[in-house]
Amino acid sequence: MEKFRFLTAGESHGKCLTAIIEGLPAGLNIDIDFINSELKRRQQGYGRGDRMQIESDTAEITSGVRFGKTLGSPITLVVKNRDFESWKKIMSVAPEDITDEKAFSTFRPGHADYAGSVKYNQTDLRNILERSSARKTAIEVAVGAIAKLFLKEFGIECSSEITQIGTACCCDKFKEEIDLTKENGDSVGGKFVVVYKNLPIGLGSHVHWDRGIDGRLAQVVMSIPAVKAVEIGENPLGYYGSTYHDEFTLNNGEIGRSSNHAGGIEGGMTNGQDLVISAVMKPIPTMRKPLKSVDSKTHQPTEAHFERSDVCAVEACSVVAETRIAWVLANEILLKFGGDSIEELKHNYHK
Amino acid sequence: MEKFRFLTAGESHGKCLTAIIEGLPAGLNIDIDFINSELKRRQQGYGRGDRMQIESDTAEITSGVRFGKTLGSPITLVVKNRDFESWKKIMSVAPEDITDEKAFSTFRPGHADYAGSVKYNQTDLRNILERSSARKTAIEVAVGAIAKLFLKEFGIECSSEITQIGTACCCDKFKEEIDLTKENGDSVGGKFVVVYKNLPIGLGSHVHWDRGIDGRLAQVVMSIPAVKAVEIGENPLGYYGSTYHDEFTLNNGEIGRSSNHAGGIEGGMTNGQDLVISAVMKPIPTMRKPLKSVDSKTHQPTEAHFERSDVCAVEACSVVAETRIAWVLANEILLKFGGDSIEELKHNYHK
Amino acid sequence: MEKFRFLTAGESHGKCLTAIIEGLPAGLNIDIDFINSELKRRQQGYGRGDRMQIESDTAEITSGVRFGKTLGSPITLVVKNRDFESWKKIMSVAPEDITDEKAFSTFRPGHADYAGSVKYNQTDLRNILERSSARKTAIEVAVGAIAKLFLKEFGIECSSEITQIGTACCCDKFKEEIDLTKENGDSVGGKFVVVYKNLPIGLGSHVHWDRGIDGRLAQVVMSIPAVKAVEIGENPLGYYGSTYHDEFTLNNGEIGRSSNHAGGIEGGMTNGQDLVISAVMKPIPTMRKPLKSVDSKTHQPTEAHFERSDVCAVEACSVVAETRIAWVLANEILLKFGGDSIEELKHNYHK
Amino acid sequence: MEKFRFLTAGESHGKCLTAIIEGLPAGLNIDIDFINSELKRRQQGYGRGDRMQIESDTAEITSGVRFGKTLGSPITLVVKNRDFESWKKIMSVAPEDITDEKAFSTFRPGHADYAGSVKYNQTDLRNILERSSARKTAIEVAVGAIAKLFLKEFGIECSSEITQIGTACCCDKFKEEIDLTKENGDSVGGKFVVVYKNLPIGLGSHVHWDRGIDGRLAQVVMSIPAVKAVEIGENPLGYYGSTYHDEFTLNNGEIGRSSNHAGGIEGGMTNGQDLVISAVMKPIPTMRKPLKSVDSKTHQPTEAHFERSDVCAVEACSVVAETRIAWVLANEILLKFGGDSIEELKHNYHK
Repeated sequence: MEKFRFLTAGESHGKCLTAIIEGLPAGLNIDIDFINSELKRRQQGYGRGDRMQIESDTAEITSGVRFGKTLGSPITLVVKNRDFESWKKIMSVAPEDITDEKAFSTFRPGHADYAGSVKYNQTDLRNILERSSARKTAIEVAVGAIAKLFLKEFGIECSSEITQIGTACCCDKFKEEIDLTKENGDSVGGKFVVVYKNLPIGLGSHVHWDRGIDGRLAQVVMSIPAVKAVEIGENPLGYYGSTYHDEFTLNNGEIGRSSNHAGGIEGGMTNGQDLVISAVMKPIPTMRKPLKSVDSKTHQPTEAHFERSDVCAVEACSVVAETRIAWVLANEILLKFGGDSIEELKHNYHK
Repeated sequence: MEKFRFLTAGESHGKCLTAIIEGLPAGLNIDIDFINSELKRRQQGYGRGDRMQIESDTAEITSGVRFGKTLGSPITLVVKNRDFESWKKIMSVAPEDITDEKAFSTFRPGHADYAGSVKYNQTDLRNILERSSARKTAIEVAVGAIAKLFLKEFGIECSSEITQIGTACCCDKFKEEIDLTKENGDSVGGKFVVVYKNLPIGLGSHVHWDRGIDGRLAQVVMSIPAVKAVEIGENPLGYYGSTYHDEFTLNNGEIGRSSNHAGGIEGGMTNGQDLVISAVMKPIPTMRKPLKSVDSKTHQPTEAHFERSDVCAVEACSVVAETRIAWVLANEILLKFGGDSIEELKHNYHK
Repeated sequence: MEKFRFLTAGESHGKCLTAIIEGLPAGLNIDIDFINSELKRRQQGYGRGDRMQIESDTAEITSGVRFGKTLGSPITLVVKNRDFESWKKIMSVAPEDITDEKAFSTFRPGHADYAGSVKYNQTDLRNILERSSARKTAIEVAVGAIAKLFLKEFGIECSSEITQIGTACCCDKFKEEIDLTKENGDSVGGKFVVVYKNLPIGLGSHVHWDRGIDGRLAQVVMSIPAVKAVEIGENPLGYYGSTYHDEFTLNNGEIGRSSNHAGGIEGGMTNGQDLVISAVMKPIPTMRKPLKSVDSKTHQPTEAHFERSDVCAVEACSVVAETRIAWVLANEILLKFGGDSIEELKHNYHK
Repeated sequence: MEKFRFLTAGESHGKCLTAIIEGLPAGLNIDIDFINSELKRRQQGYGRGDRMQIESDTAEITSGVRFGKTLGSPITLVVKNRDFESWKKIMSVAPEDITDEKAFSTFRPGHADYAGSVKYNQTDLRNILERSSARKTAIEVAVGAIAKLFLKEFGIECSSEITQIGTACCCDKFKEEIDLTKENGDSVGGKFVVVYKNLPIGLGSHVHWDRGIDGRLAQVVMSIPAVKAVEIGENPLGYYGSTYHDEFTLNNGEIGRSSNHAGGIEGGMTNGQDLVISAVMKPIPTMRKPLKSVDSKTHQPTEAHFERSDVCAVEACSVVAETRIAWVLANEILLKFGGDSIEELKHNYHK
């Protein structure tokens, strides 16, 4: 994660989310509409609450871009939190505004609340949940949208698709499964696949473990909130060596492959085939049906239940995965081809 | 991977494998027998070729340890390649020894050969395969054994277990599956689970994506040669929110959990439960039954087949995973608790 | 620079400067007035233009702090550029606003203009100078002010002092030298010393070159715009071994030193004495008296002369140095003592 | 220090010094004789003890190079310690060999002994001094020699020169100054300058403080044992803005400069002129004339005096600086131009 580096910040109900990206070449076209369309995609999907459908995140760029092109200097992205006005006092930076309003003491199973409060020595769990919230993925998607714009310069495109919702493996059944889950006041997870096409051969490397692109991709996908499993290519458990490995073919002297079970990665490197990564998302941990919990202050049994209406967020998760994968690919291209301007980089890329 | 940092080096048939580890505190007891026992574990398992059973790797320490204790300075580990004498000329560093003997031009499906030769501009594929070989995991295991020794100081212990070989999910069937595969001149993959017990709460963090311990663990496991999938805890696809999440319980005022589906990680942090990570290994790509390939020099069709007798290396892979996970845990403990001597670190840890 | 990590962004006439800091523990008191007072100090000093004296930077915190205390999550700092309204169109992010107004083509000696335009393939030098401007040190000082607040928790305090202006080595002569320089339409540099007191023994290390705190300090000071030399402690050229080295003394059984020529660092580590670092700043490269230059577009000789009235900025530079040194010290303390909350860190620190 | 990364290890009287370098492209010619000639240069210079003149370090490569060319995989360098046989027991890794022989308890002023023993909780100071010894610069020079070989591929060459010994500024007086110091049983420091020629424009950057090449160079030079000051270009204190800055000139349409006071760096970037860096080395802290000290065990006053005959090591220090600067330049070229093979890199470089 060295050349394309960035930091993100922001609480769920704070003033805004912010990111700074350092390391992109100068001269890259930045299409703000594309960034906003990615932010919108993240907010959608069957199974999201009504709130998500209405409000629409937009990004503002406050540095690093002039007249639509990157300058080579760090890019600042800001995504405002629309309801900040009503949280202004509760999320205030100022010591004098201290209040117990909206303080929170029930450890929610499946969340950072418990471990986070122990780690950071906090009694008001709001001080943990404001940052552990999936809200922060909005700014991550904005960062990834910029990475995608960079990849587009080289003709690299991506798509994603939901392949399972709960136990339903057929896409005709997905809505049904979500509707049923909603009726039960429950939540449900799922599985999706992301595909990147037209990648160059040799991103990543076999020469040192931490240069393997498979590991870097697994890191960015597994660290998405709620993701618990990552796969590259086909699950090998149904195959033997003779049926799993992608044999080499020759078509008019051009080297090709008979299949793509490996998902486009061999020896920790892209091999010129489509990159195929799947991930499994757990059911959202806040639901109408309450879970048993404990109160952090009273140390008494209690229930964790929440008025939040997302039943399934697998589609949003796939957008987050797409954009995070773009981080890794952009970084690998920058490392492999060098270049301080997009023109120089393209020269090196297309030699 | 910041405080416990290391580099590894070495070709499969070169003189030796080497690692340098920087960042461990002074005063840690280094039990060389334990390191060697881990190296031995890596070489075993049903399904390995005869060669593996006989030869036995051992590590030598050439810096950073004196009278059995770390000095705080970088530790050098060396594992000799036992058959170097017969490869001396073929793997020579000297320009004048250049030879075509053992040169290699058939791209092996499932290996780094193709992408690696394109990336590094090599025609003799030996220049790729010597480093992409799983041989390099020997020195990685030695590094991980030192990380395990460090973890033991805090009572942290690990175990692993094979849970599937090919399509056989029951351990009674594993040998049978391997024997059958061997008869067919084929190879077979599998799945294993690693469990770490007695971890402190709060390794990793929710505050920034790259501090999530789930992502860091996924990286080290997915980048093991031949691993194609990583899971943390139970696969959530069979569950709803109400059945997946691990409810909080109270036992005599002590906070506990009713289950451990999350595999010990919530919000990117260890939560005090057992850490449970599974991985799927693909079938070894070299087998008696040949795969179709292309010759890199002649650009003619050919066959990739090899005289190597490993049929299944899932057990070795689980040892590699155990030790790599130890890298991450050691690093997180060093970051969380600080300390330049083991005494100082223990003071901070047990406060 | 691992545990206390941050990125800064912002153009000189853009909307704002931004920084995100990641890695501070939770529970640290953030005194916004202190941050603003450091920003003010940076804007002052004899020899600055009138503009500097009037306008006053202030920082806003938009994440990572609640009710005056850090949350452990990333902190966002924003310093607005006060004259952005008049530059809005010229510095616009939008492609449609493209204009040649304020475009710039004379390479200024002593600036990034020439190398930057070659590197980033830019013809309008404004695209370089907007970021290379010393304006960016405002947000760096804000970051350093937070590091200083962290250091204060451990009783670590700092001061700085100008020791030379041009060839004037006596502080009575500094104003005179600056006045004379101003009359000549010229600019003048100088030398300053920064002292940090009450540091713990053992920040940095001798075990690996990049862990030496001397090198890390030299990096942050030398990379301040206009700094060309860095010294730690006394210049050794006037000494022999027998007179330079700081002998050990005993006062009532307490180990002390007879002198501090080493400036508080031996073997790449703090040794418990005051940390003493000096730096030399070159004369500001923009002055009334023009320098010979070349036009980047016409490739014709021209003159680089500028309506900017700073004659000497050594005092501001010393404030930047103070705060940058605080970055390094904060990071080293975080690495050495660990801790995710300020309470835990203090426990480890004061053991 | 991202793309050209390495770790070094080894105690002064241990078995050997080791380094692993990761990140160089494949196909680079490695001339072992050049590496050894650099090691020899480091051991020479007027004022060194007799021992240095006789023994001669040589490097062995045990990975990453085949038939004289890099493979793209990590390179291991080993430099043996010639007198290890006589230190075998004293520096043994094995716990059972524990002994007090050669244990050491007098804090030597100017060394890491005091801070190191506090930091790492050691009573036998040998456990500190074995690593803090300047012996470790031997393997650093070997690493730098490889970086120099890389730079040579692009026509980049370097030289260095001593400019001051103690207070003697004229090279005719250097030997005299050293002889006099030796007679007095004392030691003396000095100053040297390193010059790199034929660098490309735009190594480093102005866009973020830690990308400035001036800071990176200052770090590698200041962290050399005994270096206390670093300067880039001319000392600006004797100049005004109008006389210091290097004006642009035109010679037959070619942009040039009237001078090189800036030492080849403006805005944190190389500007196409010669890179000029000076450093000041303190007098060696071990000398015949004893310094006052304290015994770490008895807490009684004592004297630190040593049977080591180096009086002045400024020349060796300049070799270390040359090679460390090569680390930075190699890394910057790798970052700027990309490339996984030397052929690809050259294509990008010479476009």
